[in-house]
Order: sequence, then structure tokens, then C-alpha cells
Amino acid sequence: MELIDGNQIAATIIAELKTEVAALTGRKPCIALVRVGDDPASVSYVKKKEKTSAEIGIESRLIFPPVTITQDELFALIDRLNADPSVDGILVQSPLPKGINEVAVFRRIAAHKDVDGFHTMNLGKLAQEDETGFVACTPAGIMELLRRANVSLSGKHVVVLGRSLIVGKPAALLAVQRKAWANATVTICHSQTANLPALTRQADILIAAIGKAEFVTADMVKPGAVVIDVGVNRVPDSTKKTGYRLTGDVHFPSVSPLCAKITPVPGGVGPMTVAMLMANTVKAHRQNTAHAS
Amino acid sequence: MELIDGNQIAATIIAELKTEVAALTGRKPCIALVRVGDDPASVSYVKKKEKTSAEIGIESRLIFPPVTITQDELFALIDRLNADPSVDGILVQSPLPKGINEVAVFRRIAAHKDVDGFHTMNLGKLAQEDETGFVACTPAGIMELLRRANVSLSGKHVVVLGRSLIVGKPAALLAVQRKAWANATVTICHSQTANLPALTRQADILIAAIGKAEFVTADMVKPGAVVIDVGVNRVPDSTKKTGYRLTGDVHFPSVSPLCAKITPVPGGVGPMTVAMLMANTVKAHRQNTAHAS
Repeated sequence: MELIDGNQIAATIIAELKTEVAALTGRKPCIALVRVGDDPASVSYVKKKEKTSAEIGIESRLIFPPVTITQDELFALIDRLNADPSVDGILVQSPLPKGINEVAVFRRIAAHKDVDGFHTMNLGKLAQEDETGFVACTPAGIMELLRRANVSLSGKHVVVLGRSLIVGKPAALLAVQRKAWANATVTICHSQTANLPALTRQADILIAAIGKAEFVTADMVKPGAVVIDVGVNRVPDSTKKTGYRLTGDVHFPSVSPLCAKITPVPGGVGPMTVAMLMANTVKAHRQNTAHAS
Repeated sequence: MELIDGNQIAATIIAELKTEVAALTGRKPCIALVRVGDDPASVSYVKKKEKTSAEIGIESRLIFPPVTITQDELFALIDRLNADPSVDGILVQSPLPKGINEVAVFRRIAAHKDVDGFHTMNLGKLAQEDETGFVACTPAGIMELLRRANVSLSGKHVVVLGRSLIVGKPAALLAVQRKAWANATVTICHSQTANLPALTRQADILIAAIGKAEFVTADMVKPGAVVIDVGVNRVPDSTKKTGYRLTGDVHFPSVSPLCAKITPVPGGVGPMTVAMLMANTVKAHRQNTAHAS
């Protein structure tokens, strides 16, 4: 069994982006990081994105409106960033305060600055295999992990456990593309699936994104499979001073000995999301400056 | 074995739409039918759409530019129809002449008038389960056939053979939705799939959209399955005066005895596409007039 080291792969991607940005002669890429209020988790996520941007040489513009901002005021803020030619990417950190419609906010961001890949146009482009679009960071990170771990998908059976809009569906749409690195047969399973273990046991590559702690057990995995664990769940644990431990959607102790390769939690898919956000920002800059010239 | 009668179901839908349109007090729905040149198949398709519109009480506006029209001229024509508040839906009949980019033309149509459901925004909305979008007529017709033939998808395994943008992928996205009539486990297979018969034999509902005459044979189908045959293929047949016969992607003589239900070709999915185009046009009118009021 081989661990797929997300920290290592993310660091490699960040180093590559740093080299690419250093070689740019004109304006550097710029991401606007919008954080509403000061939810501690959001503060920490945005700080990480700011720090990684700086490391690569991406300019970050920090905008921290108060938690009392109205949806219309937030729209006006996004409209200004959409119109600003020096901003390549816009990230609005979720969750947003109650009373603000997140989907409407994400759709307000211009599709060509939507580095989070949540805009309807970008999902449509993913289905159309149109590479000018932006793919959401978690599914993009999963595919990048597989590629860099030398896992070929072509003709293989990828089973995606979970049908969420930000992981399950886009991961399935990526894996089935007519691309040399994709070309997989894809099954999407979920909470309503009958006889789930019989399906997941067929997976050459199993992507667990169901959001249930240690849901995938040894009887659900084919020996020799590659397992990507997208879950991040808190499980009560009195031996920890925090009172909990982090676990994935996979029961790692029993499943990992069966696998050819597996991602750990933490340190698997998690670190990839910020790396892919950065890659999307550099791509947005490339496309925006190509338009301008 | 029960035949799913597409002609009958399409006729029912058309009668329902006729009743709905008759009850409208204001302006009637209007579809613009754009046919470039006079390719005989296109002439026949557009005539069928015009005739069905008239039957329902939908106004159709026929626009037949010459085959020499440039892409920019076609864009200008679409822009005028987009801006015209009396036009609810716009259909540009494919194929278009060489030298005109079909994808660009379909994307030029305003998403809220895209009754063919080919626009990137409408594909994205399908992935988002946003019901304000338009679903392409063939996959929408498949789901409507299943619903009206009382085939429940929930928890069932739907196997889609083919990953095209206009049938395979949207059919898979529809079947997996968190809707009472959907909720299926979905597998997408295609030309690169290894051990295809083992996968298709797992299907409770098999949707064949691979574009190969009589490709699905008895050994690929589980007894008791429901089979939807999307293929329309011409096979040479010297006993016919045309020199060919029409056949689906399923080898009907050997497969049909195994099935709980199956669609014939012709007379299965085919008649549904015009019915769903009409349903989309009435929906566009409903949404456009709701905006206006």
C-alpha cells in the first residue's frame, strides 16, 4: 500500500506556479479574497489562501465586510470587482451569513473570474469539456492527485460515492471526459443506492465524498483499488485535548491494507484545494491578459 | 414484455400542452424556427416542428436564411430574436453549413430562450438541479417516457451507454438528481469501457445511446430490465425499396423478449423530442411572461 501524499503534491504544484508567475513580465495575477464577518474557520481559511498567494507571487486583495452587510451591498461589491481589470479571480469565502443567498452570490461573480468554479457557466463548461472554464477546487484536486500519483483512469471503473454539486458530480464529469488522462467508466452512488457494497467493490478507483465518518469499510473495497478519501469529519475522542479527532469517509485502519494507493485524512485531498485555487487564479490571469493583448 | 409507445405518450403530452395554451388569456407562446439552407432532412424536421406548434396553438416564426449566410449574419439574426419580447423560444436547426461554429451559434441564443437546451448555462443548471433551466429534448424525453410508463428510478441502477453532450451526460445528470422521480444510481459506459456486458447486465434501466446499430445484444441485458433505445441507425436492407431499414442501438429481436419494458425504433424516443421542444417553449413563455408581469 502506498500513501498518496497530498501535502507533497500540493507543494510541488505551488512551486511550479511560483516559477510560472516569476516568469511573467507584466502585471502579476491578483485574487480578491472576500470574507464576510469573522467566523474563526473562515479567518483561518482566508489566511491560508493569502499566505499561499504571497508565496507564489499572486497579489491578494483582502476585503472583509462586516457580518451586517446586505445581499445587495455584497452584489455591489462583487460588481466592482467584476469590472476591475486588475482583479483576475474572486473568492467569496463560505459560509455566508443567514439571509444571504449563497448560490445567487456565487452566480454574481463573473464566470471568467470564478476561480472557485461554482458558477453555473463553469459547471456547464465542465459538462461540455470546454477547457476555458474553471473546475471547482476539490474535484480538480482529486484528478490532479490521481494524475501525479500515476493512476491511469482510462477504461477503469471510477465509483464516486456522493452526488454533491461541489465534489461528486464534477468529479464524475471529469473522470468520464474524452481526455487521455480521463476516459473512465463512472458510477455515481449515494444515500439512496441499493446494495452499495456490491457497487463500491467494483471500483478500480473509489472516490468517497459522502460526508459520513469512516463509512467505507473493508468489505466495500476491492483489493488493489485506489481510494481517494474526500471526507473531513470530526469524531468525538476523549483521548484528544480538543475532544475530537479528524477522520475521513473511509475507515482507514481496515481499508488501507487492501489498497494499492490511498489518500490519508488529513494530508490527502485537503491541501490540494488551496493549490487548485491558486492554479485557477493563474489560469484566469493567463486568459484575461490574453484577451487584453 | 411491454412496449413503451412513444407515439402515444408524445400525443398525450401534445394534447396536454394544447389544453394549457388554450387556457392562456394573453399572448400565445412563440417559437422562432431558424433553418439555414434547404437540406432535405432539415426541411422535414422543421416542417414537423411547425405543424406540431400549430396543433398546440404555439405561434411559429419561420426564418430560412440562405446557405450562404455568414456566421456574423447568423449572430445578428439571433441577437434580434433574443431582443424580441414576442419570441419565447429560438431553435436553430442543425446541421449548420461548414464554416459556421455550431457551439458558438447555440451559445449565442439567450439562455432563457434556449428551448433546445444546448446552452452552457442550461447544462450547468441541470447539474445544479435548478429547474428554471431547459433540458435538451432527447434526455428530457427519455425521462418523460420512463415516468409515464410508471418506471420508478429511485434506488435503481441506471446504466447509460454513451457519453454524448446531448444525450448520455444529461440523461445521467437527470437520473441522479435528488428528485422523487429520479434518485437513481447511475453508471456511464462508453467505447472505452472495459468488460461492458458485465456492466450493462447490472442495469435495472438501460439507456442505449451509443450510435451503433444493434450493438446491445441479449447477453448484455438482465432479464426484467427496462430498455430505452435512443439509437436511429440506417442498416442496408435489399428487401426495402429505400435500400435500408431503420434500427436502434439495441438488437430488438433478441433483447425485447428479456425486457420488462422496451422502446421500439422507430416510435420510441424519436417522437418525444418534438413534444419536449414544445413543452420547453410553453415553459419559456410561462417564465418570460412571469418576468414581464
